[in-house]
Amino acid sequence: MNGAESLVHTLLKSGVDTCFCNPGTSEMHFVAALDRIHGMRCVLGLFEGVVTGAADGYARMTGRPAATLLHCGPGLANGLANLHNARRALTPIVNIVGDQATYHRPLDAPLTADTEGWARGASAWVRTATTSATVGVDAAVAVQAARTYPGQIATLILPSDTSWDEGGIVADALPVPAAPWSDPAQITNAARILRRGEPTVLMLGGNAVSSPEALELAHRVAAATGARLMAQGSNGRLARGQGRVPVDRVPYVVDTAIKLLAGTRQMILVGARKPVTFFAYPNKPGTSVPADADVHILARPDQDAAEALARLVDELGAPRAPLPDPGPCPTPARGAPKAEAVAATVAALLPEGAVIVDEAVSFGRGFFPLTYAAAPHDWLAGTGGAIGSGPPLATGAAIGAPGRRVIGLQADGSAMYTLQALWTQARENLDVTTILLSNRKYQILLGELAAVGANPGRTALDMLDLGNPDIDWTRLATGLGVEAARAETCETLADLLAQSIARKGPFLIELLI
Amino acid sequence: MNGAESLVHTLLKSGVDTCFCNPGTSEMHFVAALDRIHGMRCVLGLFEGVVTGAADGYARMTGRPAATLLHCGPGLANGLANLHNARRALTPIVNIVGDQATYHRPLDAPLTADTEGWARGASAWVRTATTSATVGVDAAVAVQAARTYPGQIATLILPSDTSWDEGGIVADALPVPAAPWSDPAQITNAARILRRGEPTVLMLGGNAVSSPEALELAHRVAAATGARLMAQGSNGRLARGQGRVPVDRVPYVVDTAIKLLAGTRQMILVGARKPVTFFAYPNKPGTSVPADADVHILARPDQDAAEALARLVDELGAPRAPLPDPGPCPTPARGAPKAEAVAATVAALLPEGAVIVDEAVSFGRGFFPLTYAAAPHDWLAGTGGAIGSGPPLATGAAIGAPGRRVIGLQADGSAMYTLQALWTQARENLDVTTILLSNRKYQILLGELAAVGANPGRTALDMLDLGNPDIDWTRLATGLGVEAARAETCETLADLLAQSIARKGPFLIELLI
Repeated sequence: MNGAESLVHTLLKSGVDTCFCNPGTSEMHFVAALDRIHGMRCVLGLFEGVVTGAADGYARMTGRPAATLLHCGPGLANGLANLHNARRALTPIVNIVGDQATYHRPLDAPLTADTEGWARGASAWVRTATTSATVGVDAAVAVQAARTYPGQIATLILPSDTSWDEGGIVADALPVPAAPWSDPAQITNAARILRRGEPTVLMLGGNAVSSPEALELAHRVAAATGARLMAQGSNGRLARGQGRVPVDRVPYVVDTAIKLLAGTRQMILVGARKPVTFFAYPNKPGTSVPADADVHILARPDQDAAEALARLVDELGAPRAPLPDPGPCPTPARGAPKAEAVAATVAALLPEGAVIVDEAVSFGRGFFPLTYAAAPHDWLAGTGGAIGSGPPLATGAAIGAPGRRVIGLQADGSAMYTLQALWTQARENLDVTTILLSNRKYQILLGELAAVGANPGRTALDMLDLGNPDIDWTRLATGLGVEAARAETCETLADLLAQSIARKGPFLIELLI
Repeated sequence: MNGAESLVHTLLKSGVDTCFCNPGTSEMHFVAALDRIHGMRCVLGLFEGVVTGAADGYARMTGRPAATLLHCGPGLANGLANLHNARRALTPIVNIVGDQATYHRPLDAPLTADTEGWARGASAWVRTATTSATVGVDAAVAVQAARTYPGQIATLILPSDTSWDEGGIVADALPVPAAPWSDPAQITNAARILRRGEPTVLMLGGNAVSSPEALELAHRVAAATGARLMAQGSNGRLARGQGRVPVDRVPYVVDTAIKLLAGTRQMILVGARKPVTFFAYPNKPGTSVPADADVHILARPDQDAAEALARLVDELGAPRAPLPDPGPCPTPARGAPKAEAVAATVAALLPEGAVIVDEAVSFGRGFFPLTYAAAPHDWLAGTGGAIGSGPPLATGAAIGAPGRRVIGLQADGSAMYTLQALWTQARENLDVTTILLSNRKYQILLGELAAVGANPGRTALDMLDLGNPDIDWTRLATGLGVEAARAETCETLADLLAQSIARKGPFLIELLI
């Protein structure tokens, strides 16, 4: 057995059975091993950012890491932006990165790069395999690292000789430690804080928002103590819709966030981090939390927030509480595709169990409240601010959650970074409907430029304008094998959305906004 | 004057007047400064790999660095693969990478990343600006570093407050040291070696191949001593065609390269590195140079190889020598687009002064010898093995060499990594004709898999096959604003090529091979 074969066997034994791939020469033995050993689903991406973002979406839906297969340093580099997002989402991923043979590296052949150095900035765990005999155990440790709660990026670099040399040894799966619980003092402290009756926000993240049951526990705490619930600004996965507790997120726009949190005297973090602004702005604070508010921790992001909520409910003796009524589900809107009309139309047509992948950026800021009354669904957002997360996330989510319709709310500027994902959606016939919000500009940056106080001239406008030439997304999608059509009204949007949901496979709606 | 303004003024004073941009929030003050200060040509790319690859192409044609404008760590990461290629091409580039404000970084906001760490693997010089007062001098040093012979990647990281704070100071351009000459002993040693009459190869790189005059000097040395001329495998820029000295490159395929260099007893490196194989293969050597050959250095890559050749000609008293006759220029081929027929057709129609950007990968290996007799042209190749170099290189080359037709010989698999470059070609109305070689597979990897001795099964084939669905490149190109048509024969290829050359602007020919 060669090293590559021991690697594939070990990954399978450790529960990794899906590999998002963009292989190159130095990974050919790994590819050959995938051929000989059954059980690994291999999904090809035509750009590494698709591969890593899809692995993120897959793990967000399954809770298990996928493997990625990437080619040498520059191949890894192309995948870093979405690994950065995955790291911020606390997603488990096992990257396998091919590299020069150990004895060839000193020759500094053209493709030789500092693969480890590039891996470190996005990985919690990095190791370069040294011999075929230890690749198996390296892989088992990588999976263990990835699955360490709440989920980490592990990168195993695979010099080609460690792959092709004989002497590979399959390693057993290593134990994955359970999610750490909060210290009892964290629970009693939170209960004490809540009983003060001060204006308090429970800031939720992690499995406190991904689990409908945890959300309900948080709601019981809030109902019993008068605290407000809020979710952190970006969440890997958030349970929403009818029957779920509606929770707003900390807004992206600084002034809005400050206003929303004004008057807060106490904040208790529940699997969330203390909110900070996405960027600094001249003469504005770096956090939307009032300076005189005390911040306490019920559960750190690396502790089991759902469990902490259950114990807090017990500590408080908080009874079951009726859920707030989100009102009737919106009906499809008519006319021009304004943000609220689009949100209402999507909410109206959303099938139960849908997965929304949100990279709507500026246009989509108003989508969230209007979808509370939609059918139960999960909401996946970009988490690290690296754009181009949407199409790959949708691709991976569809593979991780077969039978559920994935709806991408997708800004055009961001989609351009990873549009190759559409091809994978077509090849795998994934149930993804992309609503491509085509405003033909970097709208968010026009807002940011205005915030800077600049009166944009020709040069600045040219750098923020995606028109001239206009991008034709129906051609791009069909060129990549995904059926597509254009909509300019909510009626057409509704028709196309309903049609795409009613059948198998991917579809793209270019919505001119 | 704020820091951003001092930066723009300093770049202009230092001779950097072109900026390839993909800006984000933290760069808005830089964008605003570009608006207020005239003289910088800003070219928008919709993905960072386009931006960095275009800067590479621009500098290869002008000999001067462009600036890039990139957004934070992940934005830089998306540009690393083509920076890696540029580093291997010894191209000067000045990257400006926005980042979190100095005082915001400790808060670890979502987009915070190890920007410096990611920059290092592709840069010879990295600095993070600390105050607006020193951004100007930082920029001047960055340009100096980039222009240090033969050309380097310099990355200046720009925390947003160093950009928006007042107190910016414009810095004068710093002196750029002249290209170092070879030590006289290197010249006399080379002459001594050559006079031995042993089978000797002059291995050329750098300005020994980019300059037609240097090539002619090398030819005089060869003619006077019986040495063979050869160019290194990948070259940033190579002067070719009628009236230029024809020089073959070290082949990519190991066995071919070994055969070609068999019998060589002496090798003299002239701005080149000792050839090593692109990858290691089991039981094959890491270099195609015979083990018993002596390797000498006339000029290191960081020494002026053209000057060294001039002095070697003097030392040897090598007279002018008639150039080898490359034979008649090929005529356009007919029928099926086999590799040689395509090469003949391109050679026949190539306009004088054309720039070929070669990312033809496996299909294009036979293109080189058939284009010796074409009109004089420059040949730009991928240099670092990171694919996706072609479309951005072509874009930047067209901006750096206006009035010259750029012809991209472009493999489909590679083009998918940076297809967004087509949009920039359309927006800037660049004279680029892309011949998109559509074989709908990673052909090179099928070859590599066979070399591994594997008999590929379904899983492996699926990972190397770009069909299912077939990519429609005419739709992709037109979707991005570039006119396109499909060719299945050499006749159609010739027609479309001639038409595209006869008019302004970009065109894409999808050639089914």
